[in-house]
Amino acid sequence: MVIVMKQHATDSQIEGVVEKLVSQGFDVHRSTGVERTILGAVGAKVVDIRDYELVEGVQEVHRITQPYKLASRAFRPEGTVIEIKDVKIGGGETVVMAGPCTIEDYEQCNLIGERIRAAGARVIRGGAFKPRTSPYSFQGHGEEGLKSIRKAADNHGLLVISEIMESSQLPLAQEYIDIIQIGARNMQNYGLLRDIGQTDIPALLKRGMSATISDLLLAAEYIMSEGNHRVILCERGIRTFETHTRNTLDISAIPVIHELSHLPIVVDPSHAIGIRDKVPPLARAAMAAGADGLLLEVHHDPDNAICDGAQTMTLEQFDDLMGELKVIAGAVGRKTATANAL
Amino acid sequence: MVIVMKQHATDSQIEGVVEKLVSQGFDVHRSTGVERTILGAVGAKVVDIRDYELVEGVQEVHRITQPYKLASRAFRPEGTVIEIKDVKIGGGETVVMAGPCTIEDYEQCNLIGERIRAAGARVIRGGAFKPRTSPYSFQGHGEEGLKSIRKAADNHGLLVISEIMESSQLPLAQEYIDIIQIGARNMQNYGLLRDIGQTDIPALLKRGMSATISDLLLAAEYIMSEGNHRVILCERGIRTFETHTRNTLDISAIPVIHELSHLPIVVDPSHAIGIRDKVPPLARAAMAAGADGLLLEVHHDPDNAICDGAQTMTLEQFDDLMGELKVIAGAVGRKTATANAL
Amino acid sequence: MVIVMKQHATDSQIEGVVEKLVSQGFDVHRSTGVERTILGAVGAKVVDIRDYELVEGVQEVHRITQPYKLASRAFRPEGTVIEIKDVKIGGGETVVMAGPCTIEDYEQCNLIGERIRAAGARVIRGGAFKPRTSPYSFQGHGEEGLKSIRKAADNHGLLVISEIMESSQLPLAQEYIDIIQIGARNMQNYGLLRDIGQTDIPALLKRGMSATISDLLLAAEYIMSEGNHRVILCERGIRTFETHTRNTLDISAIPVIHELSHLPIVVDPSHAIGIRDKVPPLARAAMAAGADGLLLEVHHDPDNAICDGAQTMTLEQFDDLMGELKVIAGAVGRKTATANAL
Amino acid sequence: MVIVMKQHATDSQIEGVVEKLVSQGFDVHRSTGVERTILGAVGAKVVDIRDYELVEGVQEVHRITQPYKLASRAFRPEGTVIEIKDVKIGGGETVVMAGPCTIEDYEQCNLIGERIRAAGARVIRGGAFKPRTSPYSFQGHGEEGLKSIRKAADNHGLLVISEIMESSQLPLAQEYIDIIQIGARNMQNYGLLRDIGQTDIPALLKRGMSATISDLLLAAEYIMSEGNHRVILCERGIRTFETHTRNTLDISAIPVIHELSHLPIVVDPSHAIGIRDKVPPLARAAMAAGADGLLLEVHHDPDNAICDGAQTMTLEQFDDLMGELKVIAGAVGRKTATANAL
Repeated sequence: MVIVMKQHATDSQIEGVVEKLVSQGFDVHRSTGVERTILGAVGAKVVDIRDYELVEGVQEVHRITQPYKLASRAFRPEGTVIEIKDVKIGGGETVVMAGPCTIEDYEQCNLIGERIRAAGARVIRGGAFKPRTSPYSFQGHGEEGLKSIRKAADNHGLLVISEIMESSQLPLAQEYIDIIQIGARNMQNYGLLRDIGQTDIPALLKRGMSATISDLLLAAEYIMSEGNHRVILCERGIRTFETHTRNTLDISAIPVIHELSHLPIVVDPSHAIGIRDKVPPLARAAMAAGADGLLLEVHHDPDNAICDGAQTMTLEQFDDLMGELKVIAGAVGRKTATANAL
Repeated sequence: MVIVMKQHATDSQIEGVVEKLVSQGFDVHRSTGVERTILGAVGAKVVDIRDYELVEGVQEVHRITQPYKLASRAFRPEGTVIEIKDVKIGGGETVVMAGPCTIEDYEQCNLIGERIRAAGARVIRGGAFKPRTSPYSFQGHGEEGLKSIRKAADNHGLLVISEIMESSQLPLAQEYIDIIQIGARNMQNYGLLRDIGQTDIPALLKRGMSATISDLLLAAEYIMSEGNHRVILCERGIRTFETHTRNTLDISAIPVIHELSHLPIVVDPSHAIGIRDKVPPLARAAMAAGADGLLLEVHHDPDNAICDGAQTMTLEQFDDLMGELKVIAGAVGRKTATANAL
Repeated sequence: MVIVMKQHATDSQIEGVVEKLVSQGFDVHRSTGVERTILGAVGAKVVDIRDYELVEGVQEVHRITQPYKLASRAFRPEGTVIEIKDVKIGGGETVVMAGPCTIEDYEQCNLIGERIRAAGARVIRGGAFKPRTSPYSFQGHGEEGLKSIRKAADNHGLLVISEIMESSQLPLAQEYIDIIQIGARNMQNYGLLRDIGQTDIPALLKRGMSATISDLLLAAEYIMSEGNHRVILCERGIRTFETHTRNTLDISAIPVIHELSHLPIVVDPSHAIGIRDKVPPLARAAMAAGADGLLLEVHHDPDNAICDGAQTMTLEQFDDLMGELKVIAGAVGRKTATANAL
Repeated sequence: MVIVMKQHATDSQIEGVVEKLVSQGFDVHRSTGVERTILGAVGAKVVDIRDYELVEGVQEVHRITQPYKLASRAFRPEGTVIEIKDVKIGGGETVVMAGPCTIEDYEQCNLIGERIRAAGARVIRGGAFKPRTSPYSFQGHGEEGLKSIRKAADNHGLLVISEIMESSQLPLAQEYIDIIQIGARNMQNYGLLRDIGQTDIPALLKRGMSATISDLLLAAEYIMSEGNHRVILCERGIRTFETHTRNTLDISAIPVIHELSHLPIVVDPSHAIGIRDKVPPLARAAMAAGADGLLLEVHHDPDNAICDGAQTMTLEQFDDLMGELKVIAGAVGRKTATANAL
């Protein structure tokens, strides 16, 4: 923490701040210039910097260290590779996760699972519990849905990623799911984060609609501080003033997160843009910018999908996209593509 | 819903849209102009408008009705007055809720309770469970804290408002709390909203940091659709690019919500601005704009408060503010001020 | 400027930064802690802090002083009062500026001028050059309009405020206008700011739609650095995600600007909210928060106004509002209200 | 325009709206449902929809057509290719524009020009007039700078792109510049847009920091409505809450603009992210998403560049990037790359 004193701060004001810092366990370094004094405070304690901003004589206070530790790149400079069965997320391969927005039935899951696996995906996605802005919207098939997607995934050698919305759903997750998805609206649902942190199930944590990258990393820290270090971050678009897209995909988050954190970063272009025809350009862009994975909505008949049909690719679009992604992966130095295809 | 067809949409494209609408239970009205055709669809069903945006020949789709019903002004044009013991929220009186950010101990609650009651407040606030961005921050005193604030409130004829963060805390709320506070980060925690909706405890619902007013009303609808209509809305600042304040208080939300909804709207200037000295101007502004209540952080010794001291008023500042608020209440046609003082 | 070195920065990296700072004229203070080194740099030069962020071994750089000087409160702690004829802006009185969005003709200006003066306004507003988002919209009556508003103002002892959009209109301003309005879209039109800075005409500078308060003060600095210190700041709403209002009035800007700057701050609620019926609550709120003035759209027949009718108050609404404002002015310690009426 | 009447609107209220619409030249189509009436208004006139929102009985008003015409895809469905000497922007080739932030001297321009041409760029960029947030920052070398970059460009068969900030600089542009750059802060400087619209010099129009895509297209319409249709759009990042990047590159703008408009869209990743090391991932992403061109800051010695060194690539980084871009261009179906190299 760095505290800049006002130009005419008195000696006793400066002393007051120094004493407060020392009493909170900080080492204080004092720089006296012609115009003003700057206090550098070094210590482990996390304090509310506004507590210092209000002290007499203080002009500004700056935090100098990131408020997260376990999620920071410094904690594991070599980067984290999360192994789940035969899939590695965060290494040289980019992993594609695909499937319908909502699990409809077993046949749907099985059909989509077969096709996406053939095209190179390693994980099937599909929702059994749906967070809906309106209480009157369809809320998902629950456990029946999870049974269907699990069976379909096992048929085709795929992992299952699916969202849970509250801690009471954790036993179901433990039974059916390989990767728990934490939705954007739950990014700061601290009870849920802690409870997932006490399991060993890998979690994909979506960035909140107006969360900064620091907010996302602090949310990851909540999970990790309970012991579960298998966290995958997910950029899915942030709220901006643009109305032609559902959200604005923050493509820069990929290189920024790679610098700040050792955790893998996956991109969900479907929810970001919300329009089927524009998902492939964004998916290609994410690959070109170095994403560790993609999360894509795919359906064999999107126009009749229960939800989110408008942003869901057809299987044919998915096949074409996977071909383009392979070329781009090569161009950006991903050592190899996804095991079987990509 | 209004669907604008493209300029050169074919007859069969237009027919296709009409059929889809009819099959979903809509009455369709067709307007054929020289340049283009517009379809007006009237019906009760809530659909994802993007499902129509992707249909061939469609240019634009507009929703024409609010997605909430129970929370809308039309549902109860005369406005809702929530009675809790001898306090009425939403009527001619503006209700002031005040107290510390965090419950520290019984003595603190009792001291503050005595003073705020004398100045005219009717509700004491104080947190027992704290939602903190960092997992390493203080998380609250839990049930012990609730016991302290309850006892202090009873001593001074005050109601208690306190936040709960998960459904497992509902039994404690039932025992100790008069008004449940739902924090901004939980505004879209749908499981929690539903569970509170199944109780009859009044709930103060804070607007999410980047939620629109419609988002807030939809969240209220979640609670109300389960049966609990005793919802108080709370404006507490939204995220903007301004960095000199913690959040930007959306003062316009007061008249806008009064038009859109019958629910009372309360303002929390302390969290909005985050700086003690600037809370009074915002509190006065909220009163002048017609707020039904104020939620204020007050502490007998803010510099040594466990948390949020920087934005917490002293008891002396609170006394002065209450005097100013009385005059403004008169100017804006609040028929009477808070029962005992304001 | 404070430079935080990385945890494992080498001595030679630290030396490199120190040398670069010294070569740019800074005094450097070095604080060596157990974990990391912090460099405090004190000096007058304005540098691009990103030039230091990229140097080897540097973790973070913080600016410690405001980038503006003449506009800062420190430059004139007692506050600026701008005297124009018999009107003082920035002192104990709150000045109301009112009138139509667009100057239509002399009769309109004269009628409105008479009524607003009677109600207590001291300045008449009206546009002769209109910045319009669409090139196909009405662009204003130009010099003819200025003649009309000048004559009407002189009839009723009012000042004239009107917008100019380019430097070529300055001679007209000099002839007809008492206060030049600089529109939100021109807040960073540096050529225009400089040219106005070389005149001695008072300027009301509107905050850009997504400008921060610092951006606004830096724009004021552009004008002041050329010699014209008669700048009035104007908050007129910023862009947020809320769609029920045209912009979001940042009511907090009033106390924040009063702390940061000595310049008067005026509020324009009409453009902020964009809806006639909600202008009065916002105007009252601005007064309650301590604004030095109000800029209001008023018309004798708003439904038939050439532009912005939807946000323009009737003369009757204006009269009522002025009555309410007087009471609130008293409550917030404005020593006296506007000379003749308010 | 579609006007939704309130549920209990009276017949005379509905008639009133119909009459107002007809008097403004609209054809009106009336749809009467069980619950409410919808009015579809078809006509050429551009009106302020808020003028209808305030009419008695009206609930909501929706605009149904884009407010721009010349810039819309419908105006030239095949897309615009802008030919300048031997360079075509907007066709099958992606054009790279590169160079320093600021023109320093002839030697600098010549050295950089030689290297970027060899790597495949077709246009050299460099600023002679710099829009600076602070009045105390370096403001550019003016005409001397333009002479230097022109000579360097001619040496190496490059076009020149450079920013002008006011209409008085147009004669210089005519003498030295092939493409006028309009900066983000001037996107709504309507006087400048009109004046450029009256020349035949191609203009690259940068999206304002908080402008929507519609705002950008309306600004292009200003230029085009004066006769100059040679407009190149430029995405350069928008303001969001993220602080780790200077702005947030809106990668989705590329496919969205390709759908809405026939104008070419170029991406400036350097200003978007503001950090040298993260420019290449964003440049690759822009290419993968289908950009028609890239605008890149490149310098032979960025650490000693006069400005923006922090976001400026070295010549070596530029060479590497151009190699990667070639591969990606192939993957996304750009028929050929830039004439000589890319």
